Amino acid sequence: MTSADPEPRSDLGLLSPMRGAAEATGDVAVLQAMLDAEAALTRAQAALGLVPAEAAEAVSAAARAGAFSLPDLVARARSGGNPVIPLVRDLREAAGPYGEHVHLGATSQDIVDTALMLVAHRTLGPVLADLDRVIGGLTELAARHRDTPMAARTLTQQAVPTTFGLKAAGWRELAAAARTRLAAARATLPAQLGGAAGTLAAFQPPTNTPPPAASGPGEAVAVALRLPGRFAAELGLAEPLLPWHVLRTPIADLAGALAFTAGALGKPAADVLVLSRTEIGELSEGVGGGSSSMPHKHNPVRATMITAAARQVPPLAAVLYGSLAAEDERPSGAWHAEWQPLREALRLVAGAARDAAELVADLRVHPDRMRANLAVPGDPGPAPALVDLVLNHDQDKAPH
Amino acid sequence: MTSADPEPRSDLGLLSPMRGAAEATGDVAVLQAMLDAEAALTRAQAALGLVPAEAAEAVSAAARAGAFSLPDLVARARSGGNPVIPLVRDLREAAGPYGEHVHLGATSQDIVDTALMLVAHRTLGPVLADLDRVIGGLTELAARHRDTPMAARTLTQQAVPTTFGLKAAGWRELAAAARTRLAAARATLPAQLGGAAGTLAAFQPPTNTPPPAASGPGEAVAVALRLPGRFAAELGLAEPLLPWHVLRTPIADLAGALAFTAGALGKPAADVLVLSRTEIGELSEGVGGGSSSMPHKHNPVRATMITAAARQVPPLAAVLYGSLAAEDERPSGAWHAEWQPLREALRLVAGAARDAAELVADLRVHPDRMRANLAVPGDPGPAPALVDLVLNHDQDKAPH
Amino acid sequence: MTSADPEPRSDLGLLSPMRGAAEATGDVAVLQAMLDAEAALTRAQAALGLVPAEAAEAVSAAARAGAFSLPDLVARARSGGNPVIPLVRDLREAAGPYGEHVHLGATSQDIVDTALMLVAHRTLGPVLADLDRVIGGLTELAARHRDTPMAARTLTQQAVPTTFGLKAAGWRELAAAARTRLAAARATLPAQLGGAAGTLAAFQPPTNTPPPAASGPGEAVAVALRLPGRFAAELGLAEPLLPWHVLRTPIADLAGALAFTAGALGKPAADVLVLSRTEIGELSEGVGGGSSSMPHKHNPVRATMITAAARQVPPLAAVLYGSLAAEDERPSGAWHAEWQPLREALRLVAGAARDAAELVADLRVHPDRMRANLAVPGDPGPAPALVDLVLNHDQDKAPH
Amino acid sequence: MTSADPEPRSDLGLLSPMRGAAEATGDVAVLQAMLDAEAALTRAQAALGLVPAEAAEAVSAAARAGAFSLPDLVARARSGGNPVIPLVRDLREAAGPYGEHVHLGATSQDIVDTALMLVAHRTLGPVLADLDRVIGGLTELAARHRDTPMAARTLTQQAVPTTFGLKAAGWRELAAAARTRLAAARATLPAQLGGAAGTLAAFQPPTNTPPPAASGPGEAVAVALRLPGRFAAELGLAEPLLPWHVLRTPIADLAGALAFTAGALGKPAADVLVLSRTEIGELSEGVGGGSSSMPHKHNPVRATMITAAARQVPPLAAVLYGSLAAEDERPSGAWHAEWQPLREALRLVAGAARDAAELVADLRVHPDRMRANLAVPGDPGPAPALVDLVLNHDQDKAPH
Repeated sequence: MTSADPEPRSDLGLLSPMRGAAEATGDVAVLQAMLDAEAALTRAQAALGLVPAEAAEAVSAAARAGAFSLPDLVARARSGGNPVIPLVRDLREAAGPYGEHVHLGATSQDIVDTALMLVAHRTLGPVLADLDRVIGGLTELAARHRDTPMAARTLTQQAVPTTFGLKAAGWRELAAAARTRLAAARATLPAQLGGAAGTLAAFQPPTNTPPPAASGPGEAVAVALRLPGRFAAELGLAEPLLPWHVLRTPIADLAGALAFTAGALGKPAADVLVLSRTEIGELSEGVGGGSSSMPHKHNPVRATMITAAARQVPPLAAVLYGSLAAEDERPSGAWHAEWQPLREALRLVAGAARDAAELVADLRVHPDRMRANLAVPGDPGPAPALVDLVLNHDQDKAPH
Repeated sequence: MTSADPEPRSDLGLLSPMRGAAEATGDVAVLQAMLDAEAALTRAQAALGLVPAEAAEAVSAAARAGAFSLPDLVARARSGGNPVIPLVRDLREAAGPYGEHVHLGATSQDIVDTALMLVAHRTLGPVLADLDRVIGGLTELAARHRDTPMAARTLTQQAVPTTFGLKAAGWRELAAAARTRLAAARATLPAQLGGAAGTLAAFQPPTNTPPPAASGPGEAVAVALRLPGRFAAELGLAEPLLPWHVLRTPIADLAGALAFTAGALGKPAADVLVLSRTEIGELSEGVGGGSSSMPHKHNPVRATMITAAARQVPPLAAVLYGSLAAEDERPSGAWHAEWQPLREALRLVAGAARDAAELVADLRVHPDRMRANLAVPGDPGPAPALVDLVLNHDQDKAPH
Repeated sequence: MTSADPEPRSDLGLLSPMRGAAEATGDVAVLQAMLDAEAALTRAQAALGLVPAEAAEAVSAAARAGAFSLPDLVARARSGGNPVIPLVRDLREAAGPYGEHVHLGATSQDIVDTALMLVAHRTLGPVLADLDRVIGGLTELAARHRDTPMAARTLTQQAVPTTFGLKAAGWRELAAAARTRLAAARATLPAQLGGAAGTLAAFQPPTNTPPPAASGPGEAVAVALRLPGRFAAELGLAEPLLPWHVLRTPIADLAGALAFTAGALGKPAADVLVLSRTEIGELSEGVGGGSSSMPHKHNPVRATMITAAARQVPPLAAVLYGSLAAEDERPSGAWHAEWQPLREALRLVAGAARDAAELVADLRVHPDRMRANLAVPGDPGPAPALVDLVLNHDQDKAPH
Repeated sequence: MTSADPEPRSDLGLLSPMRGAAEATGDVAVLQAMLDAEAALTRAQAALGLVPAEAAEAVSAAARAGAFSLPDLVARARSGGNPVIPLVRDLREAAGPYGEHVHLGATSQDIVDTALMLVAHRTLGPVLADLDRVIGGLTELAARHRDTPMAARTLTQQAVPTTFGLKAAGWRELAAAARTRLAAARATLPAQLGGAAGTLAAFQPPTNTPPPAASGPGEAVAVALRLPGRFAAELGLAEPLLPWHVLRTPIADLAGALAFTAGALGKPAADVLVLSRTEIGELSEGVGGGSSSMPHKHNPVRATMITAAARQVPPLAAVLYGSLAAEDERPSGAWHAEWQPLREALRLVAGAARDAAELVADLRVHPDRMRANLAVPGDPGPAPALVDLVLNHDQDKAPH
């Protein structure tokens, strides 16, 4: 095996060509996010006088993913059932004399949850940009084809005339609704910090070495209460009202936004699949995919990929919603069952947004075929006027 | 069979004791909602001069569920795959000379979708009231037990001390988040009106008999565009920007809010189940359920019912999210697959909210057992201060 | 309210036109199945000398659903979270002097589980008959169109020629596989009898009044062990090796067979939807459905209904599979969450089988359109020979 | 980046410590399985005289995963939506002068499906061995604790006495049922070979260069029909009756067996979680996991991992069952949506089987605590006799 050989356990996405954000969600990125969380914690604690400033510097300097053995961490994560336990050991060693200040008062869940929020935050930035491309492209298509007549189809049969502009305007509204929901979820992704059981107890300064500002037990509590906000600020995440270790609102909201986005992008994909059928031919993908047996074929690959993603996300979201109902201050299963489904849902939505942006940018519209296929009488009536409503619609003021 | 004998096809909920809102979601209520939609359409059309005012009166008078044979409608719904086709026939007959003005320009989906939104709107009012009772009860519990020490448990093991007040405060935050999400979804439930393919074409006044205000093709469009808003106003539903026959944002948003609520209520239920175990005994349900074989037993029945509901809703939500990716102007399957899962999710959430309100109102807290069980050293630290944060937290201003 | 008015909580299927077996799965049928289980228990106990023969007669005579108030039972089922607790009370009263012999040693789960198995057994008989009609019809179609050329389509594009016979032969294999799986699941549906916690302890004859054949504690155990087999025989269900109150193999197997069947029937439905599109027109449903707005339309309603059913069953099966992982000797939620999803899955599969039988019986094949549409060169090659393989394939000997 | 640095897209399982078979299901293994399929195809074709024997040797020699750039293949898989298109290109190049004989007549789906079946076959061998360890360990536990009294618990409350042996015997029956179902699914995993649209047309020998044994069109068909069996034999997979490109019985059966196994192992895990609670303490894991904040804790980590796996598999199975209802000769989405969920389900079940084997091997039983906790009167009655039934039960003759 040469140095180029991948680790045998590697999943690079060979079976998931519809996946996006592979790097932003890869194990290296997750490891870095966990290290970012550990470093931010030490810095926040230093800012509140709980640890020496030098510790914050040392831990921050040591917190580079490249300095740790990922394969080794993965292997050692098994015995305790989470990757933070071995990571803390390694990071303490890497921080040398300041190792004792690593992970002080924190619990594994603080780090895993915060890291997942960071990964989500970092992943969703480009996804929102892709959605902007989708919305922009669809706005243009809707305007250009405001009056292009085509058959509306219901239960597979031609029904009455509509315009392609109205179809594109509808797609646009769905994409805009997805953007609104995803941006809202992203903006509220909170840091997690609660300690062993979410009481913040271990973040109180010890009474025998009070920090400068502290002068009693009330002060110790006050210091601990200030820590999560400082921690969140270090990471650019939202400050939670409470530790949310078993109040999984952020995960559930994200799950809903991801399931919505996958479905919202799945709608134009479903239409492209129908309308690019050989016998219909009203749309085609600009860069159609080939086939290993029929190189002449022009497959709607982007629409297929989006469709395949849209089939996978809702059940993953169901797992995440299902984890809301979790026992105790940390459940034995419901929490652990969130990690990979959340990552997979992020990947699938990232891929769908990327593929949708490409699909829209390259979509070929064939008004002649639309006209030729149109077999039902009548006219589109208010369809163009409905397009105008969408185009004049200020999404920000009145999100639908 | 006596007159008291139920129709053999009846599902009254014998296998779903966790179901709530049985009447508000029953077939009679759905039928009435469909009739309400038909009547509102005629009234809206009358208001815009599209049909005679007498037609609106006649249709509104005829639109009483009790006047139609529900079993017969159910049977006749099969051939066309939806209940509106036979209903329109019967309602036209019931409207006598004004029958021709029934369902004018509308499609089945306008009626089914609008009826489902009405049913959801009507069902969720009491659900929000139940959530208010839950929130109120939990606020009290959190305040009363702000300082009551108990063991925090993680991965089934006692970890460090916390207070029962903090646990109750967390439950409260989840319930409040559910209320916020459900109220938002309810407030935006839109009427559906688009006609055969969502173009509103068939709602335009015919050119040979222009309504008073119309003087050209542009006017005909303008009249059609005004109809959905008027229709929605008649029903107390939100006005949609566009017909949403294949833009299923409202269904998906409702699905997410329902899945969230079921899970949010499932969290305290999961905790009650653990803490009322024979060997733990820190909580008990005020009115515990008996057993057919062990009448002495005191089962946590309300928590069990909520848990059972919380297991069923996320997969139903997955079906609804899955229907976003639907082809054409009306898909052949994705739309029809929404109806019953949406109703079932509403029922389960209504039942969970009702059961949670009863659970919280009657919950017995046993601080002595909490203290006696506490086997780990330390003190709850900032836990009471976190309770204060929740109690002082203005949910409306800063929803979590 | 007249005598014809349905109970306001009634769900007759107004929102589920794809539902089948509405009577066989209705609350009256479930109630009767619970009563059948109670009566069978008393008869089995009488046969083993545990109760007087007269008790068996009296309970059997009293166990008629029509004699009980279903609405009342539904209402009273809430407090204990299951319908058996009030039912036992009523049945004891109905059995008069023999009331004390009702439900002797049993627990609610014995009755609910056994009743669900009975309902499944009774429902699946006609479903298997419908599948036989599907298989028969598809065998004929495959034979008749063994050589009828048509385009094979992959990723929506015409690929190479195939024959309609091969397509129908594939549908047949799926339907036959569904039949095999469903028949196997039905044949092993077991009765449930374990008592309070599945130990059979309460079915032992009391030591102070030994039954004729018993002469010691070993004998008491032996009598209890014989009871489940006798109970199962009374009901025509399989005898379980062990009480399966928390060993949910039968439910999971049934869930898998139902999900398989829904999907297997969903395949021809998906193809019919594509091939009956206005622009393709190679197939059409014999009795197409109309539309409330476009009476001229000829919708593929049966295929739409089957598709809608196929979307709903897998998530219901996921709930049932999820209930395998259940704590204790009776879990607080996982068991209760099975009841309604199992019933709903039975209904959807029953409806899909019925609709598939009608679809196949009435399917119109248009070889001329198939030929005219065929736009790719080549010949179907071994396709007809593959049809022969299927037609000569003895499904029973070598199930695929 | 040093040579030890993982590819940034790598998912080694950092967020899935409950995953097993990471190497057997990794991208390298999948790539090798695809290459195995390509090589087997050429060998089978050589055996039937369709390609030169030297081609078979050359392709087989070239078909080593290490010779291909996995990261590059992953990247190039995107444009066509599957990894086979670029792989065939590379393999043709690697086969040098024999490149033209690579992938002859095949389609991408032949290779992907066959590779997934190979991966499943290879993964499930060790899984069955792990299940054997589970069954063996549970048989011993059941025998040893046949008479060990403990409380049976229903709805969280102590109900009546049972024995730990009966609990272990029930676990054993579930594990044995899982083994039976998984072994049956594994034994029937078929190779896939159908060509562009499942007609085998492109596998016919060209008429102008007939193979030795061929003398007419009927012979060409006969040769093509023999190919799949030969291909399957080369790979140790089952021979399919028909190409199953859109007859997804094998995937669905595997999905069901995997969901069953996850749930069957989730049952003992759920019980261990309850019974190892601090306040109950009747069981404990031999090698309990630590905690990053509370190193003294003894967490039931294996049970937690199994539980987390059991929550994830049923929704993945729902995706797979959902893909049965797929349009055309290759659907645009349903097929692609199977790949990663199937792999993930294999991993989760492999991990659950491994963890269950460790859990059972190291389980500590505390009969003293069982006795001390027992707070309900009575005796276990036939419970030990039920254990005997299980221990004497020949699983192979009468699978439950």
